Amino acid sequence: MDKIAVFPGSFDPLTNGHLDIIKRAIDIFDKLIVTVAINTNKNALFSLEERVQIIQDVINYEKLSNVQVMSTDQLTVDFMKTHHANYIVRGIRNENDYLYERDIANINSALADNKIESVFLLAKSQNEKLSSSMLKEIIRFKGDISQFVPKVVLDRIDNK
Amino acid sequence: MDKIAVFPGSFDPLTNGHLDIIKRAIDIFDKLIVTVAINTNKNALFSLEERVQIIQDVINYEKLSNVQVMSTDQLTVDFMKTHHANYIVRGIRNENDYLYERDIANINSALADNKIESVFLLAKSQNEKLSSSMLKEIIRFKGDISQFVPKVVLDRIDNK
Amino acid sequence: MDKIAVFPGSFDPLTNGHLDIIKRAIDIFDKLIVTVAINTNKNALFSLEERVQIIQDVINYEKLSNVQVMSTDQLTVDFMKTHHANYIVRGIRNENDYLYERDIANINSALADNKIESVFLLAKSQNEKLSSSMLKEIIRFKGDISQFVPKVVLDRIDNK
Amino acid sequence: MDKIAVFPGSFDPLTNGHLDIIKRAIDIFDKLIVTVAINTNKNALFSLEERVQIIQDVINYEKLSNVQVMSTDQLTVDFMKTHHANYIVRGIRNENDYLYERDIANINSALADNKIESVFLLAKSQNEKLSSSMLKEIIRFKGDISQFVPKVVLDRIDNK
Amino acid sequence: MDKIAVFPGSFDPLTNGHLDIIKRAIDIFDKLIVTVAINTNKNALFSLEERVQIIQDVINYEKLSNVQVMSTDQLTVDFMKTHHANYIVRGIRNENDYLYERDIANINSALADNKIESVFLLAKSQNEKLSSSMLKEIIRFKGDISQFVPKVVLDRIDNK
Amino acid sequence: MDKIAVFPGSFDPLTNGHLDIIKRAIDIFDKLIVTVAINTNKNALFSLEERVQIIQDVINYEKLSNVQVMSTDQLTVDFMKTHHANYIVRGIRNENDYLYERDIANINSALADNKIESVFLLAKSQNEKLSSSMLKEIIRFKGDISQFVPKVVLDRIDNK
Repeated sequence: MDKIAVFPGSFDPLTNGHLDIIKRAIDIFDKLIVTVAINTNKNALFSLEERVQIIQDVINYEKLSNVQVMSTDQLTVDFMKTHHANYIVRGIRNENDYLYERDIANINSALADNKIESVFLLAKSQNEKLSSSMLKEIIRFKGDISQFVPKVVLDRIDNK
Repeated sequence: MDKIAVFPGSFDPLTNGHLDIIKRAIDIFDKLIVTVAINTNKNALFSLEERVQIIQDVINYEKLSNVQVMSTDQLTVDFMKTHHANYIVRGIRNENDYLYERDIANINSALADNKIESVFLLAKSQNEKLSSSMLKEIIRFKGDISQFVPKVVLDRIDNK
Repeated sequence: MDKIAVFPGSFDPLTNGHLDIIKRAIDIFDKLIVTVAINTNKNALFSLEERVQIIQDVINYEKLSNVQVMSTDQLTVDFMKTHHANYIVRGIRNENDYLYERDIANINSALADNKIESVFLLAKSQNEKLSSSMLKEIIRFKGDISQFVPKVVLDRIDNK
Repeated sequence: MDKIAVFPGSFDPLTNGHLDIIKRAIDIFDKLIVTVAINTNKNALFSLEERVQIIQDVINYEKLSNVQVMSTDQLTVDFMKTHHANYIVRGIRNENDYLYERDIANINSALADNKIESVFLLAKSQNEKLSSSMLKEIIRFKGDISQFVPKVVLDRIDNK
Repeated sequence: MDKIAVFPGSFDPLTNGHLDIIKRAIDIFDKLIVTVAINTNKNALFSLEERVQIIQDVINYEKLSNVQVMSTDQLTVDFMKTHHANYIVRGIRNENDYLYERDIANINSALADNKIESVFLLAKSQNEKLSSSMLKEIIRFKGDISQFVPKVVLDRIDNK
Repeated sequence: MDKIAVFPGSFDPLTNGHLDIIKRAIDIFDKLIVTVAINTNKNALFSLEERVQIIQDVINYEKLSNVQVMSTDQLTVDFMKTHHANYIVRGIRNENDYLYERDIANINSALADNKIESVFLLAKSQNEKLSSSMLKEIIRFKGDISQFVPKVVLDRIDNK
């Protein structure tokens, strides 16, 4: 049976760190679905549709196979049931990420009767300090983010 | 002299984790006052009155003695002076809770000239991953929270 | 060449903890610029101009030499280039501060091609539990903050 | 029924931090037994008998009532069964203490079928940085530890 | 190409927590090699050979397929090269585990020119508090460890 | 008055991470004294004299000015008094370093009546995962450490 994993997030915007996790995850699983959640935060940079489109553009540009991107308004565990996925992949950058992801993983496990498995990869050193929210701060102050995001994302931001 | 403790929080909503702390705290002190604070967060699920009522219902349902619930718009240390309470009880679920509670406890101690004592119990393993804010996320996505809250709370949420 | 450092923050309001870091930093560097950032948080207690004025009053009252206060709407690294500063000074109160400051320092270093250095001092024990946001909570509930802020700040708050 | 707590540790040597926890704990419980464990660490400063004697001397000197000191070679939970104690008291100085104490508390709870309760107090700011092992380092380098231990302990160390 | 993972450790002794990670890891990879390292710690409970034998007995008893156990005196990355393994699996129980594993994973990645991937699973709540070293403490004090280790391990310990 | 700092450690052996801190520290202070402590750990790789000699060789090779290396058997605060140093410099690699350094800094401050200041720099990302003890583990298993230490140190180790 194929091993299908989801990589859930808000990806506002997709960073080099996210892209690195995607590339490493498709080396482990047979198929990876990047699931983009509705962003309840009002300070969104991109709309849900834009975020999905950007990720699709990056997937095409990088010629990544076995990766799909989808938006969702379901709980991750419900989305997974519909799409026959059993694994959740998440990257961990630091101790706070770990604490947050641990709680989410345990709640997901409880909601899914232990039938899903959360698998964690560590952010590479160069991506460890980088968060989407910090990126948005730099953008707000008109700083240069070209070293933090894929070129596709950079062009989109410049167009804003 | 009676040992009176307060268990302050916003309890939006009361979880199994909160209930467990209440039960264990009344085993230590002579009287426990659950103090419900005005929620300054705009994403409140229940009003102050509703939250107090829910806790009262749970106290009644569980037949807990020596427990009282009250709302307050005072600083905890001022509330305690009025009600002759000398102890604050709080549960700790994880390292972030610890850091947060440590600061609050030290500020409270400074505000009360070291005359109050903060006492900490550890959340049971099954309640460690659970926070009221995570519950609200699950509710928002229409997930099943029956394993995380007392039945009284579940019925209230379903009525919403 | 003079060693010029910046101490960036929102300082809403300046606390005893901030003042202690300022005094210790001017012992290390030749000149210190306290840079007050525009506060994007809506729950600001003081305006940008008020915060700058308060810090200037404290500098005068304490007769601190080699310290300057300025507001800025630039990224810290851009401000530093303009003002020939090579060092950032920050105080660390606890582990969460450390994690936050580490990310900021690394992003700043990346944005400035490693040409700036972030230098950290530890908050004194009596200031470790104190944050501006906690102060605002105490003020909101009409608690007494006289032990946490310089007298100049206290007078300003009382006037509000 | 009397509320009996134990305060287990190796106390090599008893510090001001330990003494502060003892004083605060006897305010909560009806009786406190300080239990001194056999030290498996080879770098012991004092023998088991000496450590018990020192604590007894401090109890006498401070005229503390309802406190008893005993040595033990049992698991804490077994000692507690014999002495009808239901509570364990421990002080927490920092994040690492928290993590360590959390695991011990959970193991103790598992070993005792949830019949014992671990209660945590926070070290006062002035005692937060102080550990017995750091004290031993200072003693080894002939530093002055008079501000960190009760006078009784200081005299004992000087006699060594 | 088969996905081969190693699960390195000292396993002195194998706990329920280790066994749970093994079972979950073989669901992700095609083959899992449990690699038992020479224990440099003098307080070893079991010899290297005994530890390997115990794990083999547990694998047989649990009828686990695609799992192999081997001892090694090589660096993990060198062992992996010899055995064509590209993945390291490790369980994380708490914040300290995370910090330790992060460093090891980064060093391994540096030693192997980024050609190996470390994959992390979270310990289940019931196994989170449990470490081999804590088990050894309980054994030393003659406590009951039957709830923490597989029956095979328990019998071995009782025979000692 | 000259600003003299010490950089205390055991440096067994000096790593690229240590060297980076030395270079950055001499940019802040007028003079830096690397103080090498007697290693109480029995698993020492190099003797006190060898460690001092290696650091001196690296200082010469790198042509670092205003840096001196000295061994000491005193408490850091006592050494500093003798050498008119007022600052301690330390690098922080991760959360555990932070907790450890915080305690040491506070104890040093208490021992020196607040007359010394501890200043912290953050390890660069590429040095964050690296500790002397981890290096010793790699050496023990005959791994390649050329990317982790200065060439001078590597030659010394190869000669062993």
